[in-house]
Amino acid sequence: MTFLFNSDARRGAIFAKAFARELPDLPFAIDAATVDPDAVRYLITWVVPENLARFRNLEILFSLGAGVDQFRFDAVPATVKVVRMIEEGIVRMMQEYVTLGVLALHRNLPAYLAQQRAGEWRDIAQPQAGSRRVGVLGLGQLGQSVLDRLEPFGFPLAGWSRSPRHIEGVACHHGEPGLEEMLAASDILVCLLPLTEETRGFLNTGLFAKLPEGAALIHTGRGPQLDHEALVAALDSGQLSAAMIDGTDPEPLPAGHPFWSHPKIILTPHIASVTQPATAARAVIDNIRRHRAGLDPIGLVDRSRGY
Amino acid sequence: MTFLFNSDARRGAIFAKAFARELPDLPFAIDAATVDPDAVRYLITWVVPENLARFRNLEILFSLGAGVDQFRFDAVPATVKVVRMIEEGIVRMMQEYVTLGVLALHRNLPAYLAQQRAGEWRDIAQPQAGSRRVGVLGLGQLGQSVLDRLEPFGFPLAGWSRSPRHIEGVACHHGEPGLEEMLAASDILVCLLPLTEETRGFLNTGLFAKLPEGAALIHTGRGPQLDHEALVAALDSGQLSAAMIDGTDPEPLPAGHPFWSHPKIILTPHIASVTQPATAARAVIDNIRRHRAGLDPIGLVDRSRGY
Repeated sequence: MTFLFNSDARRGAIFAKAFARELPDLPFAIDAATVDPDAVRYLITWVVPENLARFRNLEILFSLGAGVDQFRFDAVPATVKVVRMIEEGIVRMMQEYVTLGVLALHRNLPAYLAQQRAGEWRDIAQPQAGSRRVGVLGLGQLGQSVLDRLEPFGFPLAGWSRSPRHIEGVACHHGEPGLEEMLAASDILVCLLPLTEETRGFLNTGLFAKLPEGAALIHTGRGPQLDHEALVAALDSGQLSAAMIDGTDPEPLPAGHPFWSHPKIILTPHIASVTQPATAARAVIDNIRRHRAGLDPIGLVDRSRGY
Repeated sequence: MTFLFNSDARRGAIFAKAFARELPDLPFAIDAATVDPDAVRYLITWVVPENLARFRNLEILFSLGAGVDQFRFDAVPATVKVVRMIEEGIVRMMQEYVTLGVLALHRNLPAYLAQQRAGEWRDIAQPQAGSRRVGVLGLGQLGQSVLDRLEPFGFPLAGWSRSPRHIEGVACHHGEPGLEEMLAASDILVCLLPLTEETRGFLNTGLFAKLPEGAALIHTGRGPQLDHEALVAALDSGQLSAAMIDGTDPEPLPAGHPFWSHPKIILTPHIASVTQPATAARAVIDNIRRHRAGLDPIGLVDRSRGY
């Protein structure tokens, strides 16, 4: 019975140390070549390895990232549990990034940056937080944690998910009609959706048209969810006022792409939230303990939904 | 007995409405020319008017802003109480701006903005919040409120004030030796000090040298507190990594000033925190009630300290 770590040695060493301390009975391997494939019960990886089938006794396939859209599910036997990474480090970084984004867009930072570059000293009309409505797409653990951080600032908060949720202090919407309702009342829209076939191209001209004129967008989901040309058109027409974008398609963004130079876009290179090895190791160890106790791991993927 | 509002008519109308509702027995005037000077007991203004002495029965001089550094105290009779503006709107906006600044500097936004302009897609080493120490200069109501908002993010927090304070969860320093201690342990330094003779030129080469190498600065105090040339030199030498600046000297900043184009500076035109008329009227009305009940107004200025 072995845990196989299929990624870089730096993070592997941090995992190895935590496993030796917390699960000393579970052999930990970082080099697949030296391991008996039949012994591997747990595998952590970013992408599904070509030769996954040789781990005939695999029980859990852990993703190193918060998403599993990079996994080819058809290559994973149905008996294997697939688990997303839900760990404190990812959550904290996403809280930071989205709070930074909401405050930056609320306080007109893109316009002030453009004024700075133009040598212009001029204050811009500033709505108060109580009249700046924030809507979050995706109410999983990341979405809920982000809403927790936004709450003290006094923004009216709303959220949307596929299935109904109840969150204290947040106007929760769900399904197709709920989406239209929330969009119509979101001055700042935050996308935290997982990438699935249903969310590919989700942020498009039709969706932008349902937002109030002059709304702003924070996209910390995946690049393929965003119609890049539609975003530029919506910013240029004034339908959207500004955007903070962390995920593009492709990544890196090619030279000359309009996102690089658009004065209403703040672009960051997919750094919003990154798995932190120490806290991630703890989360994986906890999940192995749950699994051994007959419980479902936290972050278990429903393959029919794709997340 | 009259309240005289010496500022723009737009805000005056909001004050007038609140006074009519809350203090119907107190005549409210917005036009000094139509008022019997002897009747004026309360005056709100941004600067001390030339002819203040003619209001012989003046009891309280209210500042429209959070600071009173624009007041010439020698023109104000010693019997008149001088009161700074402490109101919910100013506090909320400062919480927003400083949280935005701390998160922007913590998450390397100035460097990512420079990369965006250069068409460069590259992640920058990211310390976690638990190892990013934030130090706040000034522990009055603004400083304490800002620390409240930063607390959930997990930054180690410290603060400095002239006299000793105790704030739960914040390492509080005071006086000269306390200042050195806090500076040596501040990766992000926030200046919220009032402008007095003692704080003029406070943010200078000597102070920057006491910070850890690569520290970052948020300046939401007043322009004359910051040695502008020293800041540019500290950024260029690498002693400081980045700065977010809302107050300059002079304002507006002249054309060609290095702050406009410095890649490590985010510059905003003194918009961090602005008195909000509706909440400010409420704060002034509360203070008049306190005064009438024989209590000191909240925000009463100690003229010997200058704030």
